[in-house]
Order: sequence, then C-alpha cells, then structure tokens
Amino acid sequence: MKRELYTIGVDFGTLSGRAILVNAQTGEIAAVREKNYPHSVMTELCGQSLPAGWALQDPSDYLTVLDETIPSLLRESSVLPEAVVGIGFDATSCTMLPTTEDGMPLCCQEKYRAHPHAYGKLWKHHAAQPQANLLESLAEKEAPLLLARYGGKVSAQWMLPKILQILEEAPEIYRSAGLFLETVDWLTLQLTGQLTRSSCSAGFKALWNPKEGYPPPSFLKKLDGRMEHLISEKLRGGIASPWEQAGTLRPQWAERLGLSSKTSVAAGIIDAHAGVLGSGSTSSGMLFLVIGTSSCHILLSPEEKYVPGICGSCRDSILPGLYAYEAGQSCVGDMLEWFIQNNVPTRYTEQAKAQKISTHQLLSQQAAKLHPGESGLLALDWWNGQRTPLVDSRLSGAMLGMTLRTTPAEQYRALLEATAYGTRWILEVFEQAGIKIREITACGGIARKNPFAMQLYADILQRPIRATASEQASALGAAILAAVSAGVYQTPEDAVNHMACREGTVYRPDPGTQTAYQSLYQKYRMLAAFCQEQLRISS
Amino acid sequence: MKRELYTIGVDFGTLSGRAILVNAQTGEIAAVREKNYPHSVMTELCGQSLPAGWALQDPSDYLTVLDETIPSLLRESSVLPEAVVGIGFDATSCTMLPTTEDGMPLCCQEKYRAHPHAYGKLWKHHAAQPQANLLESLAEKEAPLLLARYGGKVSAQWMLPKILQILEEAPEIYRSAGLFLETVDWLTLQLTGQLTRSSCSAGFKALWNPKEGYPPPSFLKKLDGRMEHLISEKLRGGIASPWEQAGTLRPQWAERLGLSSKTSVAAGIIDAHAGVLGSGSTSSGMLFLVIGTSSCHILLSPEEKYVPGICGSCRDSILPGLYAYEAGQSCVGDMLEWFIQNNVPTRYTEQAKAQKISTHQLLSQQAAKLHPGESGLLALDWWNGQRTPLVDSRLSGAMLGMTLRTTPAEQYRALLEATAYGTRWILEVFEQAGIKIREITACGGIARKNPFAMQLYADILQRPIRATASEQASALGAAILAAVSAGVYQTPEDAVNHMACREGTVYRPDPGTQTAYQSLYQKYRMLAAFCQEQLRISS
Repeated sequence: MKRELYTIGVDFGTLSGRAILVNAQTGEIAAVREKNYPHSVMTELCGQSLPAGWALQDPSDYLTVLDETIPSLLRESSVLPEAVVGIGFDATSCTMLPTTEDGMPLCCQEKYRAHPHAYGKLWKHHAAQPQANLLESLAEKEAPLLLARYGGKVSAQWMLPKILQILEEAPEIYRSAGLFLETVDWLTLQLTGQLTRSSCSAGFKALWNPKEGYPPPSFLKKLDGRMEHLISEKLRGGIASPWEQAGTLRPQWAERLGLSSKTSVAAGIIDAHAGVLGSGSTSSGMLFLVIGTSSCHILLSPEEKYVPGICGSCRDSILPGLYAYEAGQSCVGDMLEWFIQNNVPTRYTEQAKAQKISTHQLLSQQAAKLHPGESGLLALDWWNGQRTPLVDSRLSGAMLGMTLRTTPAEQYRALLEATAYGTRWILEVFEQAGIKIREITACGGIARKNPFAMQLYADILQRPIRATASEQASALGAAILAAVSAGVYQTPEDAVNHMACREGTVYRPDPGTQTAYQSLYQKYRMLAAFCQEQLRISS
Repeated sequence: MKRELYTIGVDFGTLSGRAILVNAQTGEIAAVREKNYPHSVMTELCGQSLPAGWALQDPSDYLTVLDETIPSLLRESSVLPEAVVGIGFDATSCTMLPTTEDGMPLCCQEKYRAHPHAYGKLWKHHAAQPQANLLESLAEKEAPLLLARYGGKVSAQWMLPKILQILEEAPEIYRSAGLFLETVDWLTLQLTGQLTRSSCSAGFKALWNPKEGYPPPSFLKKLDGRMEHLISEKLRGGIASPWEQAGTLRPQWAERLGLSSKTSVAAGIIDAHAGVLGSGSTSSGMLFLVIGTSSCHILLSPEEKYVPGICGSCRDSILPGLYAYEAGQSCVGDMLEWFIQNNVPTRYTEQAKAQKISTHQLLSQQAAKLHPGESGLLALDWWNGQRTPLVDSRLSGAMLGMTLRTTPAEQYRALLEATAYGTRWILEVFEQAGIKIREITACGGIARKNPFAMQLYADILQRPIRATASEQASALGAAILAAVSAGVYQTPEDAVNHMACREGTVYRPDPGTQTAYQSLYQKYRMLAAFCQEQLRISS
C-alpha cells in the first residue's frame, strides 16, 4: 500500500486566512482551519483615521494565521508531520510591504510603529491613484506594447504606484526599505529564508514578464530619478513559477508549525489564480469566473493575443506554456450591497428580519419569480466604473424602465442581470480576440449560495456554468502547487488531474429565456454605447 | 358707501370640497370651510374590491360638502344672505355620473345601490382604457383635425370612453341613464333646476368645441351603434361659458343653504382652469403651472395653434375670445412618492421621524445643499409615461450616473430636476408652435411649501416663477365667475382684475446655475430621444 502524502494550502484573503490539509494523491481535504486577522483591514493607525482610499494590513497577522491553523490541522486529522510533503500560499495581490534587507517588516521596528507607510498596503489601497496616472502616461509614451498586455491601463492597486506613493510621501521609508515584497513572497522568505518572487504576482501586478523582465532602469528613472535602480536594489530576488519549489522549511519554522524541515515550500500565487487550479479550470478555453464584490475572469490559452481592456496577461503564471488572461468587472456584489444599503425601504428589511434571512436573500427570492424582461427594467452595472473592455473609471451606472409599479425586487433582478450582461460582453471580447471559450466554471459566494443568480448567468451567457462546490478552491490550488513543488507530481497538470475539485452544480441555460435575453443584451450594449458617448460629450 | 357684495366659490377636489366666501369688490376671502368626502375615493363597493383602475365617488358627498360648509361660512363671517349675490363651482374633470332624466343619480336608486357603474366615475378612473383606444383609432381615421386639438390622443379619463365602458359592461345602466353629467353640471342642475353644461369640461373632456359642437351621430354610430343618438338623448343640455349664469338658486336649496333665492349660479369650470382666474394668470402668454401628483400647464392665447402632444385646447373656456391650451406631465409628486415608498432606506425615514418632518422634507433639505450637476445624476421623469409632447403611456423612467457613493438625496434631487426639464420642454413646445410664454405662475402644494423645488424650477426654466400665495386659487376662480354671472362685473377680465390673488413669492433664476443646467437639459433631451428610440426598436 502506497504511503499517504499530504500537502497544505493556505489562502490569505482580505479579512482572514484559511489553511487546508489535503491528501496529495486524491485531493481529499482532511482538515480546514480559518483565522481572522487580528488587525483586519486597517483604515486607522494609533487611533488616527487614515486618508480616504487607504487600506493597510499588519503582516504579523499572516504569521498568526500560520501559528493558529497549521498545528491544529495536523492535530485534528492525526496526520504525521512527515506525511506533509509541501506547503503553498496564495494571497490577495498586489498586497505589498516594505521590509529590511532580510525581510523584517518596517512596521515591526519600534521607530516606524506609528508610520502608515511602514505597513502592508492591501490590494484595495487606492491612494496611489496619482502615481498610477503618472505611470500610465509614461508607459503610453515609452512602453505602449507593455501596456497593451494590461488592456492599456495602469491600476492604482499595482506594485509600482504603491512604491512610488511611498517614495513621494515618505522618502525615509523608501530609503529604509531593503525590499518591497508581495505578501506571498514575504511568507516564502519567512518560511524558507530564500528570496523568491512569484511570477504570477510579478506578471500581473509589477509589469514583469518572462520575455523582457521588469521595465528597464531608464524607464523607471523617467518615472522618478530616485527609482532608477529600484529593481536591482529593492525588487531583487529570483522569479519562480508558482509550482516551483522556493525552498524547504527553515528548522525554526518547522518546529513552530509542527512540520518536518524537509517540507517543500512552493513559490506563491495570486488567490483568484490559485482558484483556477483548485477548481480544475485548467483546460484551454475554460473560463474561470470569480463572482464577488467585483468579478474576475481568468482564461488560459497557448497563444498570446491582444485583448482590449483586460487587467493583465502573463505566460507561465498558472500553468507552464500557457498564457493566463485576466479580465474584470469593477463591481458586482458591491453594487447589490449599495442597493440594499441605499435603495431598499424598511418593509423589505423588516420582512427579511422576520423570515430570518438576509435582505439579499429576500430580494433574490422575489426576483426569481419574475420572467426575463417582465419588469421592463434594464440596468448598466457601472456603479464603480467599467473595467473590461472599456477601462474607464469615470463611467457610471444606469437604470431604465421605471414605472410607478416598479418594485425593489425588480430593480435587484435588473442589477444582477446587468452584471451577467457585463460578463457576456467580456466573453465576446475574448472570442473576438481569437480566444474561444468552451466552458465556464464559477466560484465565490454568489456561485455557491445563490442558485437563482447562477441560473440567471447561465441564461444570459447562453452557456452551461459549473458552480464549483469547493469552498476552498484557492487554498486547494495552493496545496496542488505544493504537491508539484514537493515532486509528488511531475507537472502541475498531473497534480490538477488528481487533486482538483471538479464537483459542483451545473446550471444549464433555459432555451425559453434566449429570445428575451438576446434582445435585452442588445439593449444593454446600446445603453452602454449611449452612456459612453454621453460622457465623451460632457468631458 | 357702496353696499358690500359677496360671492361663494366651491372647489370640489379629489378628496374634499372647499368653500370660500369672497368680497366681490376686493377679492378678500371672508371665510373658508373644508369638508372631506364621507366616501372619499371608492375603490370598493359593498365590501367588494373594484377591479384595478377603478375610482368611484358617491355624489351625495358633494351635497354634504355644500350643507356643511356654506351655512357656516355665513355664520362665521356674519355676512347676510342677501349680500351673497352669486355662487360658482369648480370640480375635477372628467368626473361624471349617470342620472335619471331629472338628474337623480342612479346610485341613489335602491336597485342600483350595489352597482359600480351607477356611481360617479372619478377623473382618475382608468378602467376605460380599451374604450379610449377604440375611440382614438376611430378619431384618427374619421376626425383627425378634431384629434389634433387634443394632441392626437384620447385619454381614458374622458367622458366618451367612460360612457362607452358603461354601455359595454352594464348596458342596463346605460339604458336607465337619462343623462350623463359632469360633477359641476350635476351640481348646477341640482341647485338651479336648469340643465346647463360647462363649455370648459365639454371642451376639454367631451370632444366638444364652439365651432362644431360634439362629434356627429354618424361618428358615434361607428363607435357603437347604440351610441348614435347619445348627444341628443343623454348629453343634451345647453352649453354655457363658465362666467355665464346657469340660473338662480331653487327656493328649496336657498333655504337649505341659508342663501337668497336670487343668488346667481355660474356655469361650472374645471378645477385647474379656475385656478388660472383665481391666481390672476389671465394675461396672454402667462403660463399657469399646477404642480401636484402630476403637473398641468394652462396657457391663454388669442390665436388657435396646433401644439403637438397637448391635452386639449378650447376657445372661450376660461376667458371670452381666448383659446385655452392645456399640457401635462404624467407624474411629478407621484414619482417622488414612489421613490419615498420604494427606494428610501430606514435610516432616512427614521431620521425624518426623529426630526418630526416628512421624508420628502428631509430629502429636500439634503438635496438643497447640492450644486447643479454635482451628483453626476440625470433622470428621466417618465415613471407614468409621457404626456406632452410625446404622448406615449408606454414610455418609462430612467436614471443615469449612479456610483457606489450615490445617495438617496442625490437621487431625489435628480428626479425633481427631471420634472423641471420636462416642464422646460413643454415651454419650448408652446413657443415653437408660436405661443410666446412671458410669465409663469405656479400653484399647488409643492409651489407653496417647497421653496427649494421652486428655486430649482426657476433655475432650470431660466425664468422667474411666481408661486401663488393663495391656497384657494381654484375656489377663488369659481367665486370670480360667480361675480360675473351675478352682474357685479361686465366681463371676467374686470372681475379678475379686482378679485384675483396676485400675491406670492417670486423665485428668480440664479445666473450661476445656467451653464450647468443648460448642459444637463441638453443631456435630458438626448436621454429622452434615446429612450424613445429604444422603445421603437423593441415594439
């Protein structure tokens, strides 16, 4: 009988970390542990509110997650430390922090305890928008082909705008920083003592790509003279694909976590990208759709294509030899939550309370009873601007078709429909660029918990959608990468074939809805064109 | 010293009747009395709910109003019966009822007590829509010029659709009806014993006009064979201008109300039209704007013009020799109320409650603090279709520009702004048809009570607006007509000059808002064109 091998995947989210222990031969999850970050998302520091757009994290929280989840995973499952052959991390990105040369976060130094720029900047820290604009203007002029890989747009969430913000606002922190590190790369460094950067986060968030590397010093010098040698000085370190081994556990960490020091540590990966592996959405042409506060769409293809308005693309960042493309919708759950908070009257919130369900559930229940087009409403889901394919944060939302009989449940359905029209548009953009979409896997809270929403998506996309049953697709992806890094499998594809969770509910399009939704989608595109045109006139 | 003369004006609204005693020389109001209708608006009968769109009244309520207001007006003011030389009525229209040949309402007969069609059909009874559609199709073919006086559209609120509904759904009521009467005409008949119909209601609501009279029997026969002789049989009676005397009080009514039997009774008038007189908005080119649940715009001109999309036009219906034009917006207050009921969350309703103000007031206060265009929102006020100038009940409302930071107060302001853009469009339509608008007087609850709304209107219309101070403009108009019918004045103009209320607050446009609102109005028209076009494509 074969010896049972295990790996651990740890998913570092926005509010908590989730660790899972996985049978590396079968993918079966032996134990799950979750720990909320003690400091959560920091919008104040030492009792002082941070400016608008700021969102920090304390990196000690990540270590707390490891301490409080990994030992108990083993205790709970009675798996022996020697059976755990690998550990892998995924995290939000770009969530970055300044550290000393040997990786000690600056915020851990007494003198910087009260300095906001010494802390980790969370992915959704948006205060580097002016720096992003500057970088974008420069890239448009100096590196248009590079920018084309990112849909022509620099996000305020990325590594270089965040570093430039530190340089401009706190040059002493910039100077003191021996390294700027993504969360996953910091964790790798902590646990292995090796400085290894993930090609996935570097590729999607730091303008790196396997062919040309980072932007050259001449480019960075034009951004800011002081940044000329940024890459060699503060972004140094080897870049590894997520399935490669970054090293093995340092003895002190092996002891601290109750694992063997032979345990392989995989290079890190971005959380949504890990989900592609965990849900087995790795065949070329399978779209992986994460529906959350915003939506993210990841697609693998052997070919490099220019796709307008995407968020990024990079080779070898998820699977060897394949390009990963990421597209996005700027708001989904956020918009529905805005509606609940701002446009739903007391009688609904009271009724939901009486039925012991959320207002979202109540409105979903009522909306599910409507037929496509019945309400006469049509919405444009641009409450937070438009990412793919228009890439314009100035665009805004719309709703048409209101009458004195319009109900909040009808409006809620129209908003949800609009997000599905937005997804359909992205599918068309990929296909028009030459990347055929053959299957769709959906992931995220809405995919697992809201069958009405998923059926709506299937009807509007006119394709079947598999909603993954896994609550841990990202952590499972990290565990899969750990297994490859430990040599359990020769290739990531092999590991996915054995370990990924392919269970889930398949929602098939109802042919009866096709005519109505075809027509409504066309109107959505007309409304999109009108609203975009209107903005052009006003600006 | 001249003997003081008085007249009484009674305004029959939707929910109550208001009677005022007015000094006929000065227009000073000596006393006011209001009485709610005991049966209010009837949407059920004998415990049975009436179908959707039904709205009935019990005509005995109108007599209750007379009984409970007029004697106490005199008591309160110590005015002697002989000093009251005239009485006049205005009422909602078309609010009609079937009666016996001598004017007894059929609903007062024991056998018809439970028969909905025996009751008065209130102006907003909308259940005759199929009949209105039929009449419209016929008029398009057979009487296009007639239809052009009404903006090309037959309303379900009018006399002929309501009669046709009775004929089709309750032929026994149609047969038993000796007369179909407008409320004002029924009151005139009750109080004088004379069958006299108001040219104002006949002109605006029964396809009558001074040149050609009613549609001919040949036309009515095509509508329904049984209606061929409707006019001569059931719509008979002389038609008088509102300032003409219909008769004097019958002795039994003089005694019942405590008035002299010499009291002159004026022919009736529609409520909004009476307001034109009461507020002194009688000079050619002065627009009288009633802002209520919906809005109504009345304009006098010596010339007959074809104005697209208006509700009606008729000569001699308010003042001799002048054409009155009526335009409309299908919803104003109704839409704001829809918003409060359906799209305002608990924290606003609770805050309003804590401040002991209405949610409308709270949102107005917050909306007043915003600058034009600041929210980025743009709405289309078509929640109840569009009357002037598009005349399309299938059109619906819209709102553009929402973001995750949009607040209900911003939305409320955008809705109110949209109603003002709609009014501006109507002004342009009148002027493009060759009727110059020189001044604007506003009337109604919003005009008196919401200075923020009136300033917004002045800014968006880019003209000063006088919000009349009179709470009783319609009743005062009826009292003015009573004075003319009694011979106190030779002409209605004379009476208006002496009696109308010209007080009020003048709102002047803020020049600082002009650029923003010019641009927003243009966008409103673009949005209107887009939404209209979109409907065309879908149908």
